[in-house]
Amino acid sequence: MTTSIGVVGAGLIGRAWAIVFARAELPVTLFDVDADALERASAAIQQSLTDLADAGLIDDPVAIMARIRFDSHLVSAMQDAIYIQECGPEDVTAKRQIYRDLEAVVSSDCVLASSTSGIAASRFTDHLEHPQRCLVAHPVNPPYLIPLVEVVPTPATSEQSVQRAMALMEQARQVPILVHQEVAGFVLNRLQGALLNEALRLFRDGVVSAEDLDKTMKHGLGLRWSFMGPFETIDLNAPAGIADYGKRYGPLYRDIDRERGQEDPWLDTTLEALDEQRRALLPTHELGERQAWRDRRLMALLAHQQATTPR
Amino acid sequence: MTTSIGVVGAGLIGRAWAIVFARAELPVTLFDVDADALERASAAIQQSLTDLADAGLIDDPVAIMARIRFDSHLVSAMQDAIYIQECGPEDVTAKRQIYRDLEAVVSSDCVLASSTSGIAASRFTDHLEHPQRCLVAHPVNPPYLIPLVEVVPTPATSEQSVQRAMALMEQARQVPILVHQEVAGFVLNRLQGALLNEALRLFRDGVVSAEDLDKTMKHGLGLRWSFMGPFETIDLNAPAGIADYGKRYGPLYRDIDRERGQEDPWLDTTLEALDEQRRALLPTHELGERQAWRDRRLMALLAHQQATTPR
Repeated sequence: MTTSIGVVGAGLIGRAWAIVFARAELPVTLFDVDADALERASAAIQQSLTDLADAGLIDDPVAIMARIRFDSHLVSAMQDAIYIQECGPEDVTAKRQIYRDLEAVVSSDCVLASSTSGIAASRFTDHLEHPQRCLVAHPVNPPYLIPLVEVVPTPATSEQSVQRAMALMEQARQVPILVHQEVAGFVLNRLQGALLNEALRLFRDGVVSAEDLDKTMKHGLGLRWSFMGPFETIDLNAPAGIADYGKRYGPLYRDIDRERGQEDPWLDTTLEALDEQRRALLPTHELGERQAWRDRRLMALLAHQQATTPR
Repeated sequence: MTTSIGVVGAGLIGRAWAIVFARAELPVTLFDVDADALERASAAIQQSLTDLADAGLIDDPVAIMARIRFDSHLVSAMQDAIYIQECGPEDVTAKRQIYRDLEAVVSSDCVLASSTSGIAASRFTDHLEHPQRCLVAHPVNPPYLIPLVEVVPTPATSEQSVQRAMALMEQARQVPILVHQEVAGFVLNRLQGALLNEALRLFRDGVVSAEDLDKTMKHGLGLRWSFMGPFETIDLNAPAGIADYGKRYGPLYRDIDRERGQEDPWLDTTLEALDEQRRALLPTHELGERQAWRDRRLMALLAHQQATTPR
C-alpha cells in the first residue's frame, strides 16, 4: 500500500491542493462524500492543468493528472495517508465531525492540516484522541499559483508535526511560514486588512478615488512587493538599513497611526460608494472574465519570476 | 528659444527625473548651483541609461542623453521652462528661497512642482506672487522605474495647473494620481505605513519572524498587488464584487483593527530586534549590492509587464 497525501473536500480549494501535490510528484487522493462533486473536480483540474501548461508553468499535465486518485469512500481514500489537507466547510460543527471521522480511519501520527482561514484549529480538534498532529495550513487562493501557506499550530500541536507539515509544504514547492500564535487573520489577512482599512478611510474621506488608490499599489508599492517583503524593502531605503529607516520614518507612521483613529471604516455607505466606482470601471457581468485575466497575469508573472536569474 | 522642462537639484531624484522627461522625448534642463554636482549627475545618468538599455527598457540611450542639458546658472537654465520639477532639500526654509528665486526667473504660469515627500506645498509657496501654479508631484524612488506620481495641489493651486501637471506626467509616461487633500504621507506612504505598523506589531509580539513576514508579501499578497490594486483584488474575491466582499470580511478587519490598539510599535527595542534578523539575512556590507539587485529585478519585472499582452 502506497502512503500518500489525502485531500478532503473537492471544492475550489481541494481541487487546487490536489494539483499542488500532484505537480510536485506526490501521489494524492481527493475525497468527497459526493461522487458528482468528484467528477466536476476532475474536469476542473484537467482544465487548470491545461491552463498551466499553456502558460509554460508545467510540462506534463497528463503525468500530473495520473497522480490524482478520486475516491468517495473515506476508508479506502484516507487509510494510508500520512498527511491530510482538510478543505471542508468553514463551520466548526462540520469540521469537528470530519476530524472525528478522519481519526477513526488514519494512523495516530497522520498529520491533519486544515485550510481554514478563520477558525483556530483547537476549536475543531480538541475532542480528538491525538490532537497533537493537528494544525492549520492555510493557503492563498489558488494555491497552485500563489505559493504562500500559513502554518498555524495549536497549543497542543507537537513540534514534530509542525516540522513535518513545513517540510511537506516545501516538498510540494509551496512557501510555508510559521505563525506562532493563533491570531485572527493569521498574518496575510492582518496585513491586507491593515492596508484595506487605511485605503477605505482615504476613499471615504475623499482623499483619493478608488481607481487612483489602486494605481498607487500596482504602479507604486506593489512593484517592489512582488519580489521583496515590506521589511526587506525598507531595509534598502535608508543608508544604514532598517533600524536607520525606523528612526527616520517611524515618527511619521506613528503620528499618522495615532491620528487615524479606530472608528469602523467598513460602513454600508462607504462600501456602496466604492462599489459604484468599481462597477463603473468593471461591470458586474465582466467579473468572471476578469478573474480569468487575473489568473493568466499571475501565471505570466510566475513564469517571468522563474525565468529571472535567481540571486 | 525652446520651451522645456526644468529640474532643480542634481541629486538622486533630480537625475532620475531628468531621465524620465528625456526618455519621453521631452527636452530637459538639469540645474544645480554646484557645477561638480552636475558633472557627477551626468556620469550617473549615463550609467543609469546603460542599465536601462541592458534591460531592454530603452532603445537609444545616446538620443536620450542628448535631450538633457546641464546648467549651473539659474536664469539660462530655467527662464524658458513651462514646468519645473523641484528636487531640493527637504527643508522649508531652503525651499522658500528656491521658489522665491524661481519666481523671479520664470513666467507667471510656469508650473512649479515639488518632489517633497513630507512638506505640504503651501508651506513653501504661500509667499509667492503666483502660488496658484504650485503643487506637489511626489515621485517614488527611482521614478524612471516606478511610474507612480502623487500630485497634491494646495488650497491655492488652480484647476488648470493641476490638469497641466497631470497631463505632463502622462506625457512623461508616468502614472499620476490626484491627492485631493494635503494629508501627511499622501497616499502611498499612508498605505505602506498602515501595513508596516501591523507588520512591526506581529514581529514585536512574536507572531512571525521578519523573514516569514517578508515571505507573506512576496510569495502571497504582493503577487496580485503587482498588477491589481487592493480594491480591484477584493472586487474579484467575492461572488458579487467589492460590496459583497465588504459584508463578508469587513467585520473581521474591523474587529482586528479595534483590538490592535494604537500604541507606538516603532520602539528602539523592536527596531533593534528587527535589525538583528535582517542583518543575519543580509550583512550591512551587502546593502549596496542588494539595491543594485533590486533595481535589476524591477527592470526585469517592468520589461515582463510591457511584454505581457495588455487587456
